[in-house]
Amino acid sequence: MLVKKVKPVPTDIEIAQAAELKPIIEIAESIGLTEDDLDYYGKYKAKIHLDVLKKFADRPLGKYIDVTAITPTPLGEGKTVTTIGLSQGLHYIGKNVMTVIRQPSQGPTFGIKGGAAGGGYSQVVPMEDFNLHLTGDIHAVGAAHNLLAAAIDNRMAKEGRWSTSFLAKALCPDDEYTPSMVKRLKKLNIDSAKPSDLTVDDRERMFRLNIDPYSIQWRRVVDVSDASLRNIIIGRGTVTDGSPRETGYDIAVASEIMAALAMCSDLADLRGRMGRIIIGTSKKGGGRTARAVEPITAEDLNVAGAMTVLLKDAIMPNLMQTLAGSPAIVHCGPFANIAQGNSSIIADKIALRIADYVVTESGFGADCGMEKFMNLKCRVSGLAPDCVVLVSTVRALKMHGGGPKVVAGRPLGKAYTEENLELLEKGLPNLLQHIENALKFGVPVVVAINRFKDDTDAEVELIRKRATETGASGVAASSVWMDGDEGGAELARAVVAACEKPGKFKVLYPDEMSIKEKIETVAREIYRADGVDYTPEAEAKIKLFTDMGLSHLPLCMAKTHLSFSHDPKLKGTPRGWRLPITDVRASVGAGFLFPLCGTMRTMPGLPTRPAFTDVDIDLDTGTVLGLF
Amino acid sequence: MLVKKVKPVPTDIEIAQAAELKPIIEIAESIGLTEDDLDYYGKYKAKIHLDVLKKFADRPLGKYIDVTAITPTPLGEGKTVTTIGLSQGLHYIGKNVMTVIRQPSQGPTFGIKGGAAGGGYSQVVPMEDFNLHLTGDIHAVGAAHNLLAAAIDNRMAKEGRWSTSFLAKALCPDDEYTPSMVKRLKKLNIDSAKPSDLTVDDRERMFRLNIDPYSIQWRRVVDVSDASLRNIIIGRGTVTDGSPRETGYDIAVASEIMAALAMCSDLADLRGRMGRIIIGTSKKGGGRTARAVEPITAEDLNVAGAMTVLLKDAIMPNLMQTLAGSPAIVHCGPFANIAQGNSSIIADKIALRIADYVVTESGFGADCGMEKFMNLKCRVSGLAPDCVVLVSTVRALKMHGGGPKVVAGRPLGKAYTEENLELLEKGLPNLLQHIENALKFGVPVVVAINRFKDDTDAEVELIRKRATETGASGVAASSVWMDGDEGGAELARAVVAACEKPGKFKVLYPDEMSIKEKIETVAREIYRADGVDYTPEAEAKIKLFTDMGLSHLPLCMAKTHLSFSHDPKLKGTPRGWRLPITDVRASVGAGFLFPLCGTMRTMPGLPTRPAFTDVDIDLDTGTVLGLF
Repeated sequence: MLVKKVKPVPTDIEIAQAAELKPIIEIAESIGLTEDDLDYYGKYKAKIHLDVLKKFADRPLGKYIDVTAITPTPLGEGKTVTTIGLSQGLHYIGKNVMTVIRQPSQGPTFGIKGGAAGGGYSQVVPMEDFNLHLTGDIHAVGAAHNLLAAAIDNRMAKEGRWSTSFLAKALCPDDEYTPSMVKRLKKLNIDSAKPSDLTVDDRERMFRLNIDPYSIQWRRVVDVSDASLRNIIIGRGTVTDGSPRETGYDIAVASEIMAALAMCSDLADLRGRMGRIIIGTSKKGGGRTARAVEPITAEDLNVAGAMTVLLKDAIMPNLMQTLAGSPAIVHCGPFANIAQGNSSIIADKIALRIADYVVTESGFGADCGMEKFMNLKCRVSGLAPDCVVLVSTVRALKMHGGGPKVVAGRPLGKAYTEENLELLEKGLPNLLQHIENALKFGVPVVVAINRFKDDTDAEVELIRKRATETGASGVAASSVWMDGDEGGAELARAVVAACEKPGKFKVLYPDEMSIKEKIETVAREIYRADGVDYTPEAEAKIKLFTDMGLSHLPLCMAKTHLSFSHDPKLKGTPRGWRLPITDVRASVGAGFLFPLCGTMRTMPGLPTRPAFTDVDIDLDTGTVLGLF
Repeated sequence: MLVKKVKPVPTDIEIAQAAELKPIIEIAESIGLTEDDLDYYGKYKAKIHLDVLKKFADRPLGKYIDVTAITPTPLGEGKTVTTIGLSQGLHYIGKNVMTVIRQPSQGPTFGIKGGAAGGGYSQVVPMEDFNLHLTGDIHAVGAAHNLLAAAIDNRMAKEGRWSTSFLAKALCPDDEYTPSMVKRLKKLNIDSAKPSDLTVDDRERMFRLNIDPYSIQWRRVVDVSDASLRNIIIGRGTVTDGSPRETGYDIAVASEIMAALAMCSDLADLRGRMGRIIIGTSKKGGGRTARAVEPITAEDLNVAGAMTVLLKDAIMPNLMQTLAGSPAIVHCGPFANIAQGNSSIIADKIALRIADYVVTESGFGADCGMEKFMNLKCRVSGLAPDCVVLVSTVRALKMHGGGPKVVAGRPLGKAYTEENLELLEKGLPNLLQHIENALKFGVPVVVAINRFKDDTDAEVELIRKRATETGASGVAASSVWMDGDEGGAELARAVVAACEKPGKFKVLYPDEMSIKEKIETVAREIYRADGVDYTPEAEAKIKLFTDMGLSHLPLCMAKTHLSFSHDPKLKGTPRGWRLPITDVRASVGAGFLFPLCGTMRTMPGLPTRPAFTDVDIDLDTGTVLGLF
């Protein structure tokens, strides 16, 4: 460990700041990377060049471990702490390991949640850098996202003011098409060498996008929790300020661009994804001649190239270190409900070529994050996981069993601090159902019990017994928060053993299944719904996307993480319910459809006392205070 | 030069990409910096630690040169090109030189203007990094700015919903004040050790800020030219989304935080400035008891510490290089109308301790940028400039003399491409008045004629004669765009000679002058107005700021840069006019008052064909295309 362990365990930031970090070049060299493979960002962060994938192409892939959890409760399970702690544990038992986790949004860091670099003696450091800016990737996503947004409103404003012949001349002053415009010509099936060749009708189709303002799905983003931006009216003022319309802001990590960045395989793939982003449609029958409704893409707005240029550094994963001095990659942080909630494919691919064991984490509970890890991320990457680690705590299982409500600021009730095998037994089905689900993907499961001081041996044994009966390959208690690398050794050994088991990874549905069949497969197999109900809007969208040739895309289910069902109040393992699909949307740039099971919040708010209240800087030392 | 010169001169990006850059550590070592003084950001950029100021504290200051220009015309003067070219020229004649320039906004880069890294064979490289993200400083400014904005609306929403006793308990759950809260207690003259001690009235004053929504000056920012965000309504939706109110977005570089960052001397100073930012006032007589209107600061919102933490890396200047392989610092880019339009004081201080010659640039013409460089930036820094370089072109002076309008895309008229001494003579007073103005500050002036191929020797001689008669220490033609370092040698020699002249720098007005006297001094001495007229609103603000004890602050005049007067149509040297002051605002965090002489645009728009249209990435090489 890079820091001496003391009891009682100090605050996260105190531990992180007490650690004596290794220069990042030492971390890099420990895994076979040289200075030429890196771009330094200060002494303790570096971006990894994508060509290391070529350099290590012949090296066999490491073991691929996905850390997920039972259905979250207000008590928390310590999933990130366990992810980092497991890596530290693997390092402790002498394995060549790499952690790959998401970069957190600054919104929650300064809002409700605080930092996300792990905690206690299981952290990625420097934790200030991890939680703030890092190397600017989220800012780059925001810049690209908002450039596209500006391009949309600007194009609508200009089309509203100018004739098509003026637009054509302004867009092609030298009577030449840009490569983007050539793509649009192809999409429109127009054969033309130069703009002046176009017929009046073709010029109209080519240069007047005729965007329907009510169809626009593309909102703006900011990496701040700012509830007052959820619903806004823009374009007030005078004619040069555009036309008023309703729209809003999402948190930057909810951007489709973040999802696409995490999903892409290289710069060329990313460029294609940016071009395919659909921002809305053209107006029905508008313009000089009646035209069919057309999906309008970033390519049509000639801005996908500039968006990719803004992301050319963000595509490179960021190398950091754990408190055990083992390497950690931090890359991308797509939202876990409307997007895949997993770190990037590129980062995993690099890690698997460099390390023997790669530990990554999926957002939310296993019904959300792990299902997307398998059906979405691994489907696209072609990588096969070797082990699922399911994090649970005795107290959270008791809550699933019907334990009393927990009130912030008040001490935990006796149900949680004293042995209660009956309550635990009632809550266990939640864990067991997640185990069953993971096994459906053909991947061995290890249950990690993030152990607290009040948990009794009998309680741990009960979990071990039931989990093993259900098919878990291993069950291990861990105390990585308090004990760091050592506290993860037992879990590490269980994971190493599970990775040796022959797995036969499979996704739950094939690409060619219909959209409805895909939704129903996930609903029945993972959520255990009796069936699925669709609103008329969802039905219409399913037909539209099928007609548009998008039904081959995998799903990214937008469902609450607080229950197996769509109702956050239903704990444990709900039975006898049907899943309502209220709408279906397409993130074509990211490469998935997302069925909505209820309303998803894409812009967090701030509490009365936001986390920023405690954050300050020590003016003598420059040290950051109050991040947690 | 790092690149072989060819004719005809290729595009800026072609030249920049053909250059064989030195690793940034070589550039650093050439000026006495070591790896320990730097944080690398990739191979060709590094942040410089502020403690180099201590390391070099005993080294004498270098010569301090401010590059400014005549009143801008649509023809452009090549001020940045000359700034970089002069540095390259000083390097060429064997001087130890450092360029210090502003980081440009991505808004214009993708909008109307294109990049700002210089041009031709006078550039700061890598130009892609210079124009995009750089090391994330503007993003950090945006993050801090928008965090404060979210804090304002969140606080208003929470105060609207909760009782004061609830607010007090939520803000101080452990019945303890944070350091920020202690500052507010002091401001309110309340003596209290813990919140539970407060009287009902004091609790109300302490925890209910009672912000008047109509008083809020703090808008939001984004680094994208997005006209549709100029005027918006936020807070629509439900109670958790806040209350609807009108506000808007500015371009990120127009943020008061950018101005404060460029003005601060260290992290402690920056922390103080963040706390002093006034976002608006409390309501008149609102709340339980009648209260006086109180300016509400970022400190009152407990967010100034977190804002500073977000800026802890942005405060460090960025080291890059010119095409001549000489060092360049790029740091901060405050708007040139509502802010000071000059790079940071910290960067200049570091450069002056490291280099023998420091060349920096002021935004807009000399009546705007140079006046602020002198009266504002040098006043605050205590540094004295040794030379002013006034950039002008023959063609721009002809336009000031009444030359015909120039239409984009059409060839220049004969007035500009053929010798016309009469027209030039008519336009010369604009240059001469700028020379006179610079001399009022007690600083020697060198006129740089950025020479174009059609300029005749007789025209250059006429400028030389008149400028010398008016008091210029030197006049030199330069051809740095085409000839790089060599093309700046003559100018460099003239600047070296001027720097040897004894200067006696003075600011135009003392701190203790009244606000109106300061305005009138600048209006008469620099703009040559006959007097100043104030709107009732401006009168009221002057009284308010005087009552608030802010009249000691220097001014940052918000005037058009397109004329000496407030009317952009008046070229040359307008006479017989009065300056109207429509409003006065306070940027207390940045440390100045800004009188408005007309409407200032703080959010640019996009043209019909934005610059992003040409930007793309070469998918084989990863090279950026189409930036200019």
